[in-house]
Amino acid sequence: MPALPASLPDAIALVAEAVDARFDTLLAIPDDPRANLYACMRHAAIGGGKRLRPLLTIATADLFGVDRACAALVGTAIEAIHVYSLIHDDLPAMDDDDMRRGKPTAHKVYGEATAILAGDCLHALAFEVLADPGTHPDPFVRSELVLDLARAAGPSGMAGGQMMDLEAEKARFDLGTVTRLQQMKTGALIGAAVEAGAILGRVPPEGRVHLRGYAHDLGLAFQIADDLLDAEGDEALAGKKLRKDGEAGKETFLSLLGVDRARAQCTMLVDQAVQHLRGYGPEADLLRAIARYVVERDR
Amino acid sequence: MPALPASLPDAIALVAEAVDARFDTLLAIPDDPRANLYACMRHAAIGGGKRLRPLLTIATADLFGVDRACAALVGTAIEAIHVYSLIHDDLPAMDDDDMRRGKPTAHKVYGEATAILAGDCLHALAFEVLADPGTHPDPFVRSELVLDLARAAGPSGMAGGQMMDLEAEKARFDLGTVTRLQQMKTGALIGAAVEAGAILGRVPPEGRVHLRGYAHDLGLAFQIADDLLDAEGDEALAGKKLRKDGEAGKETFLSLLGVDRARAQCTMLVDQAVQHLRGYGPEADLLRAIARYVVERDR
Repeated sequence: MPALPASLPDAIALVAEAVDARFDTLLAIPDDPRANLYACMRHAAIGGGKRLRPLLTIATADLFGVDRACAALVGTAIEAIHVYSLIHDDLPAMDDDDMRRGKPTAHKVYGEATAILAGDCLHALAFEVLADPGTHPDPFVRSELVLDLARAAGPSGMAGGQMMDLEAEKARFDLGTVTRLQQMKTGALIGAAVEAGAILGRVPPEGRVHLRGYAHDLGLAFQIADDLLDAEGDEALAGKKLRKDGEAGKETFLSLLGVDRARAQCTMLVDQAVQHLRGYGPEADLLRAIARYVVERDR
Repeated sequence: MPALPASLPDAIALVAEAVDARFDTLLAIPDDPRANLYACMRHAAIGGGKRLRPLLTIATADLFGVDRACAALVGTAIEAIHVYSLIHDDLPAMDDDDMRRGKPTAHKVYGEATAILAGDCLHALAFEVLADPGTHPDPFVRSELVLDLARAAGPSGMAGGQMMDLEAEKARFDLGTVTRLQQMKTGALIGAAVEAGAILGRVPPEGRVHLRGYAHDLGLAFQIADDLLDAEGDEALAGKKLRKDGEAGKETFLSLLGVDRARAQCTMLVDQAVQHLRGYGPEADLLRAIARYVVERDR
């Protein structure tokens, strides 16, 4: 994989291509009764999304001169967790969504049973890739990648946050609880994507403090921007149904803060995220651009 | 954890207690909106089943003098994968079962959304436990455990086998395809349970050939016995609905072989499994007893 271009749109396009190529290899359709299962995984995994998580992994790994093909594969594993969560969140029993990334959702095309299994398979595949000696030769790096991603994906992270999100329809959460919910549901995996780059770079935990601060603030800013997009965005551009939170009576950053304060908070968090990178030179410009993109993408 | 008793029922009871204790710690209910998620995981994970997989891990690890508390924790992680698969397989979109292990299924008590997430959380927790330095100090052992379990759980193993099982209602599978289906759906995780004991015992891959043979034959024998139980067993004793395969028109070992040949095949596989252990002395008697138990449990 070539170096990431300085221009963010070019970097996004290059990472998207690299992730698609890796999913294409990992998810080659077998000539047996599992063909539909693989087709369903491909439908959900290939050709969609901004690939923010792999972009963060590769851009962070680049700070430390990590082999870029390795970082791309690790980023693809993290994206596999994100894709599995989208498949399961879209199910009728969960958020019941028909459209995702401008396409019908996985269960709409392949049925619920296949969609549930496709999510489960992507979940297992992510850990298979991270633990494979072909991905990284050092078992310490491999097991640290697995541990960090498993924590970010499980009940203390993404899946726990989705549970809180479902409960949000029944309870009235305050700002602290909404912040914690979003930090788990979205922030944990964004944090794992940055952390993976640092793990690959063999940065000791005490050297990751600023990168964690960056990821934390970026994750919250991203979610507030998502709330703003949900309230003000265009469904055709977003490729999915919008304004569902309001209809469900859920408290969000937007309902609790109002548009103006939410936008100000988002800008402040992005500034803070960039500030965390002050110890890095121009080599961190792409991470800075990613943070700024977050506030600007919904305009 | 004390040494496993020579008597199989006593060993099963001891392992069940050890696995329940570890799930009790791992799944402590938090005082926040995730309480139902944890309650659902506990409902499915604690107090049920024969705990065949952790028993196999601990009994295999015992051949090599592995620390028994460590083997019990690794066995619990493998059981977490089994439990997650039961939760998802029981969902209305999948096998639509109301009873499991003599209790209402997870989605019947907690609803489908919580059940899907509880399965996802147990899936992630299994890998979190295996990759945790507190489980085993050697990162090589940890990442090998993760790799082997991820392969056994994913599209080439358990989840892929469940997909083939769903397709079996639509197609007429031959004996070769049914064998492959069952080897993936049930055999892969039974194999991973034995393999984990060997990995913990630092047996090199070339030294695991006989243990793999044992697990392979045991897995198939187990599935044929399950088919016999399904056809001839008592629903109250089994704690779940039986005779569903026949109603769904699925080909099984039983429909393809008939009762007598299926029973003979099961006995032959158990003999073969025991033969694979001929290089071991009395220290492998528990593994031998587990194999024999498989043919006898449905009588």
